[in-house]
Amino acid sequence: MFIAKVIGKVVATQKAEKLVGSKLLVIKSINENQQFSEENALVAVDRVGAGMGDIVLVDWGDSLYEEAKLAADMAIVGIIDEIQMEGK
Amino acid sequence: MFIAKVIGKVVATQKAEKLVGSKLLVIKSINENQQFSEENALVAVDRVGAGMGDIVLVDWGDSLYEEAKLAADMAIVGIIDEIQMEGK
Amino acid sequence: MFIAKVIGKVVATQKAEKLVGSKLLVIKSINENQQFSEENALVAVDRVGAGMGDIVLVDWGDSLYEEAKLAADMAIVGIIDEIQMEGK
Amino acid sequence: MFIAKVIGKVVATQKAEKLVGSKLLVIKSINENQQFSEENALVAVDRVGAGMGDIVLVDWGDSLYEEAKLAADMAIVGIIDEIQMEGK
Amino acid sequence: MFIAKVIGKVVATQKAEKLVGSKLLVIKSINENQQFSEENALVAVDRVGAGMGDIVLVDWGDSLYEEAKLAADMAIVGIIDEIQMEGK
Repeated sequence: MFIAKVIGKVVATQKAEKLVGSKLLVIKSINENQQFSEENALVAVDRVGAGMGDIVLVDWGDSLYEEAKLAADMAIVGIIDEIQMEGK
Repeated sequence: MFIAKVIGKVVATQKAEKLVGSKLLVIKSINENQQFSEENALVAVDRVGAGMGDIVLVDWGDSLYEEAKLAADMAIVGIIDEIQMEGK
Repeated sequence: MFIAKVIGKVVATQKAEKLVGSKLLVIKSINENQQFSEENALVAVDRVGAGMGDIVLVDWGDSLYEEAKLAADMAIVGIIDEIQMEGK
Repeated sequence: MFIAKVIGKVVATQKAEKLVGSKLLVIKSINENQQFSEENALVAVDRVGAGMGDIVLVDWGDSLYEEAKLAADMAIVGIIDEIQMEGK
Repeated sequence: MFIAKVIGKVVATQKAEKLVGSKLLVIKSINENQQFSEENALVAVDRVGAGMGDIVLVDWGDSLYEEAKLAADMAIVGIIDEIQMEGK
Protein backbone atom coordinates (compact mmCIF):
# COMPACT_ATOMS: atom_id res chain seq x y z
CA MET A 1 0.00 0.00 0.00
CA PHE A 2 1.11 3.55 -0.47
CA ILE A 3 0.23 6.94 0.94
CA ALA A 4 -1.43 9.51 -1.31
CA LYS A 5 -3.45 12.69 -1.30
CA VAL A 6 -6.78 13.01 -3.06
CA ILE A 7 -6.39 15.85 -5.58
CA GLY A 8 -9.33 15.49 -7.92
CA LYS A 9 -11.97 13.28 -9.43
CA VAL A 10 -12.65 11.73 -12.79
CA VAL A 11 -15.90 12.01 -14.70
CA ALA A 12 -16.36 9.22 -17.23
CA THR A 13 -19.76 8.58 -18.75
CA GLN A 14 -18.59 5.73 -20.91
CA LYS A 15 -16.97 3.09 -18.73
CA ALA A 16 -16.78 -0.62 -18.01
CA GLU A 17 -20.05 -1.85 -16.50
CA LYS A 18 -18.47 -2.88 -13.22
CA LEU A 19 -17.23 0.68 -12.59
CA VAL A 20 -20.70 2.21 -12.81
CA GLY A 21 -21.55 3.73 -9.43
CA SER A 22 -17.95 3.84 -8.23
CA LYS A 23 -16.41 7.13 -7.14
CA LEU A 24 -13.19 7.55 -9.11
CA LEU A 25 -10.71 9.77 -7.30
CA VAL A 26 -7.48 11.24 -8.65
CA ILE A 27 -4.67 10.60 -6.18
CA LYS A 28 -1.02 11.56 -6.09
CA SER A 29 1.44 9.63 -3.97
CA ILE A 30 3.26 11.47 -1.20
CA ASN A 31 6.33 10.56 0.78
CA GLU A 32 6.63 10.07 4.53
CA ASN A 33 7.02 13.85 4.92
CA GLN A 34 3.80 14.37 3.01
CA GLN A 35 5.50 15.88 -0.04
CA PHE A 36 4.24 14.99 -3.49
CA SER A 37 6.37 12.62 -5.50
CA GLU A 38 7.39 13.25 -9.11
CA GLU A 39 5.17 10.44 -10.32
CA ASN A 40 2.00 10.89 -12.29
CA ALA A 41 -1.32 11.07 -10.54
CA LEU A 42 -3.32 7.85 -10.55
CA VAL A 43 -7.01 6.98 -10.26
CA ALA A 44 -8.44 4.82 -7.49
CA VAL A 45 -11.90 3.62 -6.57
CA ASP A 46 -13.02 4.99 -3.22
CA ARG A 47 -14.08 2.37 -0.68
CA VAL A 48 -14.10 4.45 2.51
CA GLY A 49 -15.80 7.75 1.82
CA ALA A 50 -12.65 9.76 1.05
CA GLY A 51 -12.85 13.31 -0.24
CA MET A 52 -10.75 16.12 -1.71
CA GLY A 53 -7.57 16.80 0.23
CA ASP A 54 -7.69 13.64 2.35
CA ILE A 55 -4.47 11.75 3.03
CA VAL A 56 -5.32 8.16 2.18
CA LEU A 57 -4.02 4.62 2.11
CA VAL A 58 -4.13 3.11 -1.36
CA ASP A 59 -4.06 -0.60 -2.15
CA TRP A 60 -2.79 -1.63 -5.56
CA GLY A 61 -3.57 -5.23 -6.13
CA ASP A 62 -5.84 -7.82 -7.53
CA SER A 63 -6.74 -9.18 -4.15
CA LEU A 64 -9.23 -6.31 -4.28
CA TYR A 65 -11.20 -8.44 -6.68
CA GLU A 66 -11.15 -11.51 -4.54
CA GLU A 67 -11.84 -9.68 -1.32
CA ALA A 68 -14.40 -7.12 -2.43
CA LYS A 69 -15.29 -8.10 -6.01
CA LEU A 70 -13.87 -4.73 -6.95
CA ALA A 71 -13.30 -4.60 -10.68
CA ALA A 72 -10.31 -2.25 -10.48
CA ASP A 73 -6.63 -2.54 -9.73
CA MET A 74 -6.46 0.31 -7.23
CA ALA A 75 -8.62 1.39 -4.31
CA ILE A 76 -8.57 3.79 -1.40
CA VAL A 77 -8.80 1.49 1.63
CA GLY A 78 -8.23 3.93 4.49
CA ILE A 79 -8.29 7.58 5.49
CA ILE A 80 -5.10 8.34 7.40
CA ASP A 81 -5.50 10.24 10.67
CA GLU A 82 -1.85 10.29 11.58
CA ILE A 83 1.52 8.96 10.47
CA GLN A 84 3.70 8.30 13.51
CA MET A 85 7.38 8.36 12.54
CA GLU A 86 10.40 7.36 14.52
CA GLY A 87 13.54 9.53 14.18
CA LYS A 88 15.48 8.25 11.16
CA MET B 1 -5.71 2.89 -12.75
CA PHE B 2 -3.92 5.59 -14.66
CA ILE B 3 -4.80 8.29 -17.13
CA ALA B 4 -3.56 8.03 -20.70
CA LYS B 5 -4.12 9.29 -24.20
CA VAL B 6 -4.76 6.98 -27.14
CA ILE B 7 -1.98 7.69 -29.67
CA GLY B 8 -2.09 4.77 -32.05
CA LYS B 9 -3.02 1.20 -32.72
CA VAL B 10 -1.21 -2.07 -33.15
CA VAL B 11 -1.68 -4.46 -36.06
CA ALA B 12 -0.63 -8.02 -35.23
CA THR B 13 -1.68 -10.87 -37.46
CA GLN B 14 0.07 -13.50 -35.41
CA LYS B 15 -1.17 -13.33 -31.83
CA ALA B 16 -2.40 -15.38 -28.90
CA GLU B 17 -5.80 -16.90 -29.66
CA LYS B 18 -7.56 -15.01 -26.88
CA LEU B 19 -6.52 -11.66 -28.34
CA VAL B 20 -8.16 -12.31 -31.71
CA GLY B 21 -10.93 -9.78 -32.22
CA SER B 22 -9.63 -7.35 -29.61
CA LYS B 23 -8.81 -3.77 -30.56
CA LEU B 24 -5.24 -3.13 -29.40
CA LEU B 25 -4.63 0.56 -28.78
CA VAL B 26 -1.31 2.30 -28.14
CA ILE B 27 -1.61 4.56 -25.11
CA LYS B 28 0.77 6.94 -23.39
CA SER B 29 0.25 7.93 -19.81
CA ILE B 30 -0.36 11.59 -19.02
CA ASN B 31 -0.18 13.49 -15.76
CA GLU B 32 -2.94 15.41 -14.03
CA ASN B 33 -2.20 18.41 -16.27
CA GLN B 34 -2.61 16.20 -19.33
CA GLN B 35 1.07 16.31 -20.26
CA PHE B 36 2.74 13.17 -21.56
CA SER B 37 5.07 11.40 -19.17
CA GLU B 38 8.57 10.26 -20.11
CA GLU B 39 7.53 6.65 -19.97
CA ASN B 40 7.18 4.38 -22.97
CA ALA B 41 3.87 3.96 -24.67
CA LEU B 42 1.95 0.82 -23.72
CA VAL B 43 -0.71 -1.30 -25.40
CA ALA B 44 -4.16 -1.89 -23.93
CA VAL B 45 -7.22 -3.80 -25.03
CA ASP B 46 -10.17 -1.49 -25.62
CA ARG B 47 -13.33 -2.33 -23.66
CA VAL B 48 -15.31 0.89 -24.09
CA GLY B 49 -15.10 1.96 -27.72
CA ALA B 50 -12.19 4.37 -27.34
CA GLY B 51 -10.56 5.99 -30.35
CA MET B 52 -7.54 8.04 -31.42
CA GLY B 53 -6.93 11.08 -29.22
CA ASP B 54 -9.29 10.04 -26.42
CA ILE B 55 -8.24 10.61 -22.81
CA VAL B 56 -8.88 7.28 -21.14
CA LEU B 57 -8.79 5.42 -17.86
CA VAL B 58 -6.54 2.37 -17.99
CA ASP B 59 -6.69 -0.58 -15.64
CA TRP B 60 -3.55 -2.63 -15.19
CA GLY B 61 -4.36 -5.76 -13.38
CA ASP B 62 -5.23 -9.38 -13.48
CA SER B 63 -8.64 -8.84 -12.02
CA LEU B 64 -9.48 -8.09 -15.65
CA TYR B 65 -9.30 -11.80 -16.24
CA GLU B 66 -11.57 -12.66 -13.36
CA GLU B 67 -14.05 -9.93 -14.06
CA ALA B 68 -14.20 -9.97 -17.84
CA LYS B 69 -12.23 -13.08 -18.87
CA LEU B 70 -9.92 -10.64 -20.61
CA ALA B 71 -6.70 -12.39 -21.55
CA ALA B 72 -4.55 -9.28 -21.18
CA ASP B 73 -2.93 -7.36 -18.37
CA MET B 74 -4.11 -3.93 -19.44
CA ALA B 75 -7.42 -2.54 -20.64
CA ILE B 76 -9.09 0.77 -21.33
CA VAL B 77 -12.03 0.79 -18.92
CA GLY B 78 -13.34 4.34 -19.31
CA ILE B 79 -13.34 7.38 -21.57
CA ILE B 80 -12.69 10.45 -19.44
CA ASP B 81 -15.01 13.41 -19.98
CA GLU B 82 -13.45 15.64 -17.37
CA ILE B 83 -10.82 15.65 -14.64
CA GLN B 84 -11.94 17.92 -11.80
CA MET B 85 -8.94 19.11 -9.80
CA GLU B 86 -8.80 20.92 -6.51
CA GLY B 87 -6.19 23.69 -6.09
CA LYS B 88 -2.97 22.08 -4.86
CA MET C 1 10.36 -9.61 -1.93
CA PHE C 2 12.37 -6.60 -0.93
CA ILE C 3 14.29 -5.45 2.12
CA ALA C 4 13.02 -2.49 4.12
CA LYS C 5 13.26 -0.75 7.46
CA VAL C 6 10.22 -0.03 9.61
CA ILE C 7 10.16 3.75 10.11
CA GLY C 8 6.68 4.50 11.40
CA LYS C 9 3.09 3.46 11.67
CA VAL C 10 -0.21 4.59 10.24
CA VAL C 11 -3.30 5.42 12.26
CA ALA C 12 -6.50 5.17 10.23
CA THR C 13 -9.84 5.05 11.97
CA GLN C 14 -11.81 4.85 8.77
CA LYS C 15 -10.65 1.88 6.75
CA ALA C 16 -11.79 -1.13 4.76
CA GLU C 17 -13.37 -3.72 7.03
CA LYS C 18 -10.77 -6.36 6.28
CA LEU C 19 -7.96 -4.10 7.56
CA VAL C 20 -9.52 -3.65 11.00
CA GLY C 21 -7.18 -5.16 13.58
CA SER C 22 -4.13 -5.14 11.28
CA LYS C 23 -0.98 -3.30 12.33
CA LEU C 24 -0.09 -0.96 9.47
CA LEU C 25 3.62 -0.15 9.42
CA VAL C 26 5.39 2.49 7.35
CA ILE C 27 8.40 0.94 5.65
CA LYS C 28 11.13 2.32 3.44
CA SER C 29 13.11 0.07 1.15
CA ILE C 30 16.85 -0.20 1.70
CA ASN C 31 19.59 -1.53 -0.53
CA GLU C 32 21.96 -4.40 0.17
CA ASN C 33 24.19 -1.99 2.12
CA GLN C 34 21.21 -1.02 4.26
CA GLN C 35 20.99 2.51 2.84
CA PHE C 36 17.59 4.03 2.19
CA SER C 37 16.52 4.25 -1.42
CA GLU C 38 15.10 7.41 -2.99
CA GLU C 39 11.68 5.84 -3.28
CA ASN C 40 8.68 6.83 -1.23
CA ALA C 41 7.86 5.03 1.96
CA LEU C 42 5.15 2.38 1.68
CA VAL C 43 2.68 0.80 4.08
CA ALA C 44 2.60 -2.92 4.85
CA VAL C 45 0.52 -5.14 7.09
CA ASP C 46 2.63 -6.76 9.79
CA ARG C 47 2.42 -10.56 9.93
CA VAL C 48 5.42 -11.34 12.13
CA GLY C 49 5.44 -8.97 15.08
CA ALA C 50 7.80 -6.39 13.56
CA GLY C 51 8.48 -3.10 15.31
CA MET C 52 10.10 0.31 14.82
CA GLY C 53 13.61 0.12 13.42
CA ASP C 54 13.45 -3.55 12.39
CA ILE C 55 14.98 -4.62 9.08
CA VAL C 56 12.27 -6.67 7.42
CA LEU C 57 11.40 -8.77 4.43
CA VAL C 58 8.39 -7.43 2.53
CA ASP C 59 6.21 -9.40 0.14
CA TRP C 60 4.33 -7.46 -2.51
CA GLY C 61 1.84 -9.72 -4.10
CA ASP C 62 -1.64 -11.00 -4.30
CA SER C 63 -0.66 -14.48 -3.31
CA LEU C 64 -0.93 -12.97 0.17
CA TYR C 65 -4.67 -13.18 -0.28
CA GLU C 66 -4.67 -16.78 -1.36
CA GLU C 67 -2.17 -17.90 1.24
CA ALA C 68 -3.27 -15.91 4.25
CA LYS C 69 -6.57 -14.29 3.22
CA LEU C 70 -4.77 -11.02 3.77
CA ALA C 71 -6.77 -8.20 2.22
CA ALA C 72 -3.72 -6.11 1.32
CA ASP C 73 -1.11 -6.03 -1.40
CA MET C 74 1.91 -5.77 0.87
CA ALA C 75 2.96 -7.53 4.06
CA ILE C 76 5.98 -7.90 6.30
CA VAL C 77 6.73 -11.63 6.15
CA GLY C 78 10.04 -11.82 8.01
CA ILE C 79 12.33 -10.01 10.42
CA ILE C 80 15.85 -10.13 9.04
CA ASP C 81 18.58 -11.17 11.47
CA GLU C 82 21.43 -10.98 8.99
CA ILE C 83 22.15 -10.40 5.32
CA GLN C 84 25.14 -12.49 4.27
CA MET C 85 26.78 -10.97 1.19
CA GLU C 86 29.43 -12.36 -1.07
CA GLY C 87 32.13 -9.95 -2.34
CA LYS C 88 30.79 -8.27 -5.49
CA MET D 1 1.11 -4.93 -22.53
CA PHE D 2 4.24 -3.30 -23.85
CA ILE D 3 6.16 -3.24 -27.09
CA ALA D 4 9.58 -4.86 -27.26
CA LYS D 5 12.19 -6.22 -29.62
CA VAL D 6 13.54 -9.75 -29.36
CA ILE D 7 17.31 -9.41 -28.87
CA GLY D 8 18.44 -12.81 -27.68
CA LYS D 9 17.59 -16.05 -26.01
CA VAL D 10 18.33 -17.71 -22.72
CA VAL D 11 19.74 -21.19 -22.28
CA ALA D 12 19.00 -22.69 -18.88
CA THR D 13 19.44 -26.40 -18.31
CA GLN D 14 18.39 -26.25 -14.68
CA LYS D 15 14.93 -24.69 -14.45
CA ALA D 16 11.51 -25.02 -12.88
CA GLU D 17 9.69 -28.04 -14.26
CA LYS D 18 6.89 -26.00 -15.81
CA LEU D 19 9.38 -24.05 -17.94
CA VAL D 20 10.81 -27.15 -19.62
CA GLY D 21 10.06 -26.96 -23.32
CA SER D 22 9.36 -23.22 -23.32
CA LYS D 23 11.36 -20.92 -25.59
CA LEU D 24 12.80 -18.17 -23.37
CA LEU D 25 13.48 -15.00 -25.34
CA VAL D 26 15.40 -11.94 -24.21
CA ILE D 27 13.39 -8.82 -25.00
CA LYS D 28 14.04 -5.14 -24.57
CA SER D 29 11.20 -2.66 -24.45
CA ILE D 30 11.01 0.00 -27.13
CA ASN D 31 9.06 3.22 -27.29
CA GLU D 32 6.44 4.23 -29.85
CA ASN D 33 9.26 5.38 -32.17
CA GLN D 34 10.86 1.96 -31.87
CA GLN D 35 13.85 3.21 -29.88
CA PHE D 36 15.18 1.08 -27.03
CA SER D 37 14.41 2.29 -23.53
CA GLU D 38 17.03 2.59 -20.80
CA GLU D 39 15.50 -0.28 -18.91
CA ASN D 40 17.09 -3.69 -18.52
CA ALA D 41 16.28 -6.46 -20.91
CA LEU D 42 13.70 -8.97 -19.67
CA VAL D 43 12.90 -12.59 -20.44
CA ALA D 44 9.54 -13.75 -21.78
CA VAL D 45 8.10 -17.10 -22.79
CA ASP D 46 7.25 -17.20 -26.48
CA ARG D 47 3.65 -18.13 -27.28
CA VAL D 48 3.47 -17.08 -30.94
CA GLY D 49 6.59 -18.28 -32.72
CA ALA D 50 8.59 -15.06 -32.38
CA GLY D 51 12.24 -14.91 -33.43
CA MET D 52 15.32 -12.71 -33.26
CA GLY D 53 14.68 -9.12 -34.26
CA ASP D 54 10.88 -9.34 -34.17
CA ILE D 55 8.89 -6.44 -32.74
CA VAL D 56 6.50 -8.08 -30.30
CA LEU D 57 3.66 -7.47 -27.90
CA VAL D 58 4.48 -8.60 -24.37
CA ASP D 59 1.96 -9.37 -21.66
CA TRP D 60 3.09 -9.08 -18.07
CA GLY D 61 0.54 -10.59 -15.83
CA ASP D 62 -0.68 -13.53 -13.91
CA SER D 63 -3.76 -13.92 -16.03
CA LEU D 64 -1.34 -15.82 -18.25
CA TYR D 65 -1.58 -18.61 -15.75
CA GLU D 66 -5.35 -18.65 -15.68
CA GLU D 67 -5.75 -18.28 -19.41
CA ALA D 68 -2.96 -20.51 -20.69
CA LYS D 69 -1.66 -22.31 -17.59
CA LEU D 70 1.61 -20.57 -18.36
CA ALA D 71 3.92 -20.80 -15.36
CA ALA D 72 5.63 -17.49 -16.02
CA ASP D 73 4.89 -13.82 -15.41
CA MET D 74 5.72 -12.62 -18.89
CA ALA D 75 4.90 -13.86 -22.38
CA ILE D 76 5.12 -12.74 -25.98
CA VAL D 77 1.50 -12.73 -27.12
CA GLY D 78 1.77 -11.13 -30.55
CA ILE D 79 4.15 -10.31 -33.39
CA ILE D 80 3.57 -6.71 -34.42
CA ASP D 81 3.20 -6.05 -38.15
CA GLU D 82 2.62 -2.33 -37.84
CA ILE D 83 2.15 0.42 -35.29
CA GLN D 84 -0.21 3.05 -36.69
CA MET D 85 0.35 6.38 -34.94
CA GLU D 86 -1.69 9.53 -35.05
CA GLY D 87 0.15 12.86 -35.18
CA LYS D 88 0.90 13.94 -31.59
CA MET E 1 11.04 -12.62 -15.85
CA PHE E 2 14.30 -10.82 -15.36
CA ILE E 3 17.97 -11.72 -15.20
CA ALA E 4 19.83 -11.35 -11.92
CA LYS E 5 22.92 -12.43 -10.06
CA VAL E 6 22.79 -14.09 -6.65
CA ILE E 7 24.82 -11.85 -4.31
CA GLY E 8 23.86 -12.98 -0.83
CA LYS E 9 21.37 -14.66 1.41
CA VAL E 10 18.94 -13.62 4.09
CA VAL E 11 18.74 -15.11 7.56
CA ALA E 12 15.36 -14.57 9.22
CA THR E 13 14.40 -16.60 12.26
CA GLN E 14 11.03 -14.93 12.64
CA LYS E 15 9.07 -15.31 9.41
CA ALA E 16 5.71 -16.24 7.94
CA GLU E 17 5.02 -19.95 8.41
CA LYS E 18 4.92 -20.67 4.71
CA LEU E 19 8.48 -19.40 4.25
CA VAL E 20 9.97 -21.81 6.79
CA GLY E 21 12.36 -24.13 5.00
CA SER E 22 12.75 -21.86 1.94
CA LYS E 23 16.19 -20.64 0.91
CA LEU E 24 15.97 -16.85 0.64
CA LEU E 25 18.57 -15.46 -1.75
CA VAL E 26 19.54 -11.83 -2.28
CA ILE E 27 19.58 -11.05 -5.99
CA LYS E 28 20.45 -7.98 -7.99
CA SER E 29 19.15 -7.52 -11.50
CA ILE E 30 21.65 -7.27 -14.34
CA ASN E 31 21.28 -6.07 -17.89
CA GLU E 32 21.86 -8.01 -21.08
CA ASN E 33 25.58 -7.23 -20.80
CA GLN E 34 25.60 -8.67 -17.30
CA GLN E 35 26.18 -5.32 -15.61
CA PHE E 36 24.37 -4.56 -12.35
CA SER E 37 21.49 -2.12 -12.57
CA GLU E 38 21.06 0.82 -10.21
CA GLU E 39 18.07 -0.79 -8.59
CA ASN E 40 18.02 -2.18 -5.09
CA ALA E 41 18.75 -5.81 -4.46
CA LEU E 42 15.69 -8.03 -3.98
CA VAL E 43 15.00 -11.31 -2.22
CA ALA E 44 13.73 -14.41 -4.00
CA VAL E 45 12.89 -17.94 -2.94
CA ASP E 46 15.17 -20.46 -4.61
CA ARG E 47 13.38 -23.22 -6.55
CA VAL E 48 16.28 -24.64 -8.57
CA GLY E 49 19.28 -25.04 -6.29
CA ALA E 50 20.94 -21.73 -7.14
CA GLY E 51 23.98 -20.52 -5.22
CA MET E 52 26.23 -17.50 -4.69
CA GLY E 53 27.36 -15.89 -7.93
CA ASP E 54 24.94 -17.73 -10.20
CA ILE E 55 23.25 -15.84 -13.03
CA VAL E 56 19.58 -16.69 -12.65
CA LEU E 57 16.15 -16.23 -14.14
CA VAL E 58 13.72 -14.65 -11.68
CA ASP E 59 9.93 -14.82 -11.91
CA TRP E 60 7.97 -12.08 -10.22
CA GLY E 61 4.37 -13.03 -10.11
CA ASP E 62 1.52 -14.53 -8.25
CA SER E 63 1.18 -17.40 -10.65
CA LEU E 64 3.94 -18.83 -8.47
CA TYR E 65 1.26 -19.46 -5.89
CA GLU E 66 -1.09 -21.17 -8.28
CA GLU E 67 1.59 -23.21 -9.98
CA ALA E 68 3.77 -24.19 -7.05
CA LYS E 69 1.84 -23.07 -3.96
CA LEU E 70 4.80 -20.81 -3.31
CA ALA E 71 3.89 -18.24 -0.68
CA ALA E 72 6.14 -15.54 -2.09
CA ASP E 73 6.01 -13.01 -4.90
CA MET E 74 9.44 -13.76 -6.35
CA ALA E 75 11.33 -16.95 -7.12
CA ILE E 76 14.44 -18.10 -8.92
CA VAL E 77 13.09 -20.39 -11.63
CA GLY E 78 16.23 -21.11 -13.67
CA ILE E 79 20.01 -21.04 -13.61
CA ILE E 80 21.23 -19.40 -16.81
CA ASP E 81 23.98 -21.22 -18.71
CA GLU E 82 24.20 -18.76 -21.55
CA ILE E 83 22.55 -15.65 -22.95
CA GLN E 84 22.75 -15.71 -26.75
CA MET E 85 22.45 -12.18 -28.13
CA GLU E 86 21.97 -11.00 -31.68
CA GLY E 87 23.90 -7.93 -32.83
CA LYS E 88 21.81 -4.85 -31.97
